[in-house]
Amino acid sequence: MILTVTLNLAVDVTYFVERYERGETMTVGDVGRRAGGKGVNVARVLHGLGREVVVTGLAGGATGRAARAELAHAGLREELVEIEGESRSTVMVVEADGQATGFSEPGPPVGAEEWRAFRERFERLIAQARAVVLAGSLPRGMRGDVYAELIRAAKDEQVPVLLDASGDALEQGARACPEIVKINQAELRGVTGAEDVLRGARALRALGAGTVVVSQGANGLSAVGADWVLRAAPPEAFRGNPTGAGDAASAALIVGLCDASVWSERLADAAALSAAAVRAPLAGSFDASTYERLREGAGVSSRQ
Amino acid sequence: MILTVTLNLAVDVTYFVERYERGETMTVGDVGRRAGGKGVNVARVLHGLGREVVVTGLAGGATGRAARAELAHAGLREELVEIEGESRSTVMVVEADGQATGFSEPGPPVGAEEWRAFRERFERLIAQARAVVLAGSLPRGMRGDVYAELIRAAKDEQVPVLLDASGDALEQGARACPEIVKINQAELRGVTGAEDVLRGARALRALGAGTVVVSQGANGLSAVGADWVLRAAPPEAFRGNPTGAGDAASAALIVGLCDASVWSERLADAAALSAAAVRAPLAGSFDASTYERLREGAGVSSRQ
Repeated sequence: MILTVTLNLAVDVTYFVERYERGETMTVGDVGRRAGGKGVNVARVLHGLGREVVVTGLAGGATGRAARAELAHAGLREELVEIEGESRSTVMVVEADGQATGFSEPGPPVGAEEWRAFRERFERLIAQARAVVLAGSLPRGMRGDVYAELIRAAKDEQVPVLLDASGDALEQGARACPEIVKINQAELRGVTGAEDVLRGARALRALGAGTVVVSQGANGLSAVGADWVLRAAPPEAFRGNPTGAGDAASAALIVGLCDASVWSERLADAAALSAAAVRAPLAGSFDASTYERLREGAGVSSRQ
Repeated sequence: MILTVTLNLAVDVTYFVERYERGETMTVGDVGRRAGGKGVNVARVLHGLGREVVVTGLAGGATGRAARAELAHAGLREELVEIEGESRSTVMVVEADGQATGFSEPGPPVGAEEWRAFRERFERLIAQARAVVLAGSLPRGMRGDVYAELIRAAKDEQVPVLLDASGDALEQGARACPEIVKINQAELRGVTGAEDVLRGARALRALGAGTVVVSQGANGLSAVGADWVLRAAPPEAFRGNPTGAGDAASAALIVGLCDASVWSERLADAAALSAAAVRAPLAGSFDASTYERLREGAGVSSRQ
């Protein structure tokens, strides 16, 4: 099975409105409400692809319970560790023209005892895992080296890691040598200061990261390895909800890692699944027909 | 005690952000989260004024449980009836300049059996009440005559009613002859078609409403009775969060009804408490010092 870690679990609420009217109170038509956080989104896509997956991380309070109930309802196996603090919610407002505006709560405090309980659970799960995905923000106040700590623990068990993080957690995580780092251009810039994707990716690799994959919205994905660079982009721009597109890419990349596929295939698959996620209304979902149509023809080019 | 009815109970979430950035995801600094719905807000203000109050209505799911837990924590006595549907959330985004933008979910379906259970609870509570406040939206799909039905039940027990509703629920409620109707100008226009407050209030009175009080934002309040009109406004405009200002006015009006104060005092008190609510960050709260300062000098004028 593939293990995904979500330390800052959320209930993701999506409000669909005709148009955002500042200063008004809008009655919301449809409401989407489900468990979220990048690790959960990745797990949902993996589940949708028919892969065996386990969700772990931290969950607390009424919001944590609601998230767990929804995961169970979606058929996702979870091994979340209960904490005292209240898990966060996020709200995404999607307008009729597809414009999406989000509000992200900071997340609960995590005690030392709670972290120890999580570490024990992680040790037990990693022993059964083929690969692990560490993805998303950290709860407020959590030290920046926790991803690095988990990467080292996974490496001790020879389990490969994909890391999707930002800021300090990304920088310290990269130093622990994860097999794949998957980030977007803003996250790359935030840590390396580089506007140029190639330069930034090489700086992350110099810290210790294996292959660095950078998502660039409608411009697709770049992957930077030891002595190679690959780019993949869908043949057309897709309108829709971009939330979760990066998580779909992570899911494709970790599947490619488990299947030991060549990088040109992995990246094409990631670009196709990412575009298919944009076509689905909620993060963690993807449009199966778009995925099928694109997965062969996502226009991969490689250059040194 | 004063009974307040909240048929469409909510958890009201308030996000404080520097500035709304369309298309971005904003990390929220402070998060306010508490039980809401107009009836709850009124009860909270009454509790803050030291009045004995009981909250009833309908509550369901994890959101309903969270709302009840918060009410208990705030020291508010509740007699909510459990329903199967999930109570709604509302989200209010408050920017640093005080601009407030809201999202209101429609609320859960309510079954016939659940309504009967609520009616039984209401009968029991109304027998102990000195006055009742019926305030706020109805859950989706609920028939528009439920407030009218509750007003008739209260009248059977000689318990006076304040109604704050809109649309069909307001129109049908007014026909059941509540002692006070408290609405804003948009709600008055929605039902009577009248731009003019006096004309609109008289149309509502013609349906059966007793005294009609219309809140007009920074312009204060107008009260229209059988052969008199009163106006009250604070001496200055207040910056802040206007959510819940109308509920503070309702609280003052029901207190005045219980105390049998004269209408000029009631309305001045309502205007002062309303302005004090604008100065407090969350609906249901009021700034006590603003209230004390204004309650004597809210500038009441009366005209025929």
